[in-house]
Amino acid sequence: MDATLSSGVVRAGRQAREQFHDARGYGDPDGDGVRLAPVEAAHLLYRGDLDAVDGMGFREFLASATCPDLHFLVYKDLRDRGFYLSPTGADWVADHGIADLVVYPRGKGPWDDEVAYRVRVVSERATVPASDLGDVVLAVVDEESEITYLETDRPDVSGSTDYDAPDDVPGSLLDDRVLLWDPPAALYEHGFYGQPLDRDGETVEALQLSLVEAAFLVRHGALALGTDGDDESAVLERGRTVEGDRFDRRLRVYTALREAGVVPKTGYKFGADFRTYADVESVSELSHSELLVRVVPDDHEFAPRDLALDVRLAGGVRKRMVFALAGADGTIDWLSAERLTP
Amino acid sequence: MDATLSSGVVRAGRQAREQFHDARGYGDPDGDGVRLAPVEAAHLLYRGDLDAVDGMGFREFLASATCPDLHFLVYKDLRDRGFYLSPTGADWVADHGIADLVVYPRGKGPWDDEVAYRVRVVSERATVPASDLGDVVLAVVDEESEITYLETDRPDVSGSTDYDAPDDVPGSLLDDRVLLWDPPAALYEHGFYGQPLDRDGETVEALQLSLVEAAFLVRHGALALGTDGDDESAVLERGRTVEGDRFDRRLRVYTALREAGVVPKTGYKFGADFRTYADVESVSELSHSELLVRVVPDDHEFAPRDLALDVRLAGGVRKRMVFALAGADGTIDWLSAERLTP
Repeated sequence: MDATLSSGVVRAGRQAREQFHDARGYGDPDGDGVRLAPVEAAHLLYRGDLDAVDGMGFREFLASATCPDLHFLVYKDLRDRGFYLSPTGADWVADHGIADLVVYPRGKGPWDDEVAYRVRVVSERATVPASDLGDVVLAVVDEESEITYLETDRPDVSGSTDYDAPDDVPGSLLDDRVLLWDPPAALYEHGFYGQPLDRDGETVEALQLSLVEAAFLVRHGALALGTDGDDESAVLERGRTVEGDRFDRRLRVYTALREAGVVPKTGYKFGADFRTYADVESVSELSHSELLVRVVPDDHEFAPRDLALDVRLAGGVRKRMVFALAGADGTIDWLSAERLTP
Repeated sequence: MDATLSSGVVRAGRQAREQFHDARGYGDPDGDGVRLAPVEAAHLLYRGDLDAVDGMGFREFLASATCPDLHFLVYKDLRDRGFYLSPTGADWVADHGIADLVVYPRGKGPWDDEVAYRVRVVSERATVPASDLGDVVLAVVDEESEITYLETDRPDVSGSTDYDAPDDVPGSLLDDRVLLWDPPAALYEHGFYGQPLDRDGETVEALQLSLVEAAFLVRHGALALGTDGDDESAVLERGRTVEGDRFDRRLRVYTALREAGVVPKTGYKFGADFRTYADVESVSELSHSELLVRVVPDDHEFAPRDLALDVRLAGGVRKRMVFALAGADGTIDWLSAERLTP
């Protein structure tokens, strides 16, 4: 069966309409015939269902650049997995924002009104702005043409931890931590602030606070450092010295998490900024942390390679990967990403 | 028991020498007495073995900045693990390059001639130049004062894969891959070049090469693209367009690995440049890949946070993390890092 190409649309006759559209969800009715997007035609050529488009076989059609090869690879993969799908670039497909492919639930097609996934196709070398993510599945094609699907979402991040630190606990500001001598036991045990200097002892004689914990506590009047000037300025200055701009972004996210009832602790071992506990009643009965949080500016451009690394690592330790998108105006938006097998 | 501090050296008398040096490996004999480095004195103060140094107790001594708090934390941790160790900053300790602490094997001490680990103490926020690594253990102290030990080495990277590609296999250069139609079966099956377009079929009808594979093959006369000009230039240009300078560095490392009998494939899913197979006889009997390779310039400064992430991810998939340090002069040095529990 042959077809013709004109202005980026492939057209074929009544038999093609019956076999390709009516029976298998390709293209859109066009009078008696059918119109097909280039990626659909490429797939039909690849399968041998179409013989030629304007005399071009599959090899010539793919090499002609009418159809981007990345789109073809993802289209083919999703068809192989049993889905019907439409490229959003076609005139007859509704707008789906930044998605390139709209995938229907298994057993459904373009004539139904249901969508399983909106898929954006990207090379592993491309970058994707944070603002594009949250309601789309990224299909990342690596340099050897393997495809990884990453589902993005805008989750609610909240918890039920409820602890108020006491006022003016005394502490000493060291190089890049704060030491509390004889702190109130609940500060660590119920608030999960700091790390005991000696974990073997039965009572906590000295508690080490990170600078971000110290900055949060000092701002809430819970910590008194007895510095020469203003305690808050002293901690912020030390934080900015060791971390630069990142310190303020991390402190904003730390604060937002604490205010949402979630306890953030360092995520260093996982390459993240924080790991979080949604419900701390007591450190001695702590469950596993649920989220890994990485703080990025809200205009961050994600490299799919780094995104895949974060998601893989989080999956390996059974945590959810969440990005805190910190706006210059103080807002924080949450963005999650996880591996998807369509 | 009291001691005095002068010019960065703590001195105490005969009883201190017997109890601290002779019995437990602190400091160095000094006439009848003993001299101690500040970090050793801090540890003795912390344990209550020393009462004061120039009137300072542990809190005052640590806050006086005589002893860096990071060094104290690592010194204490290694003592807690049952090791005797010496700070290299002390006059009486031999030079150990960039190491801060020299750790003796369990049961041995400064009076023996054996070394278990040379340890460099770093904050997670510091950076460490690649040239400093390879014969040292990094003790990375995170913001909450937890310590991760990373052992670095200069491994030999070689394998026994032996396959010569045939000459002038024809292919088409697409957007960022090369497609081979009807390639010789051995190219994939024994050479492990490329990725079949369709993995279900029994024969490989089309093979997708990454640009770095294509550049290597075209340079060795194994690939003919029939481009308008010079095939090699065409692939290199495409590679530099999509990856910039990284492409040339990655191609150099790819070439070095192939020439050493090791097969590199993309490491994208692991956030690395390559995963490698040391001994490919046949793809259908492939064992797991052994190394994850990340390519960096040889003047790269490692962030301990990123290093820990790479090492953790490699460990999670039972592979060894190796960095290829690519010099501007074409040399490649191999650097490995792995988690250590002293």
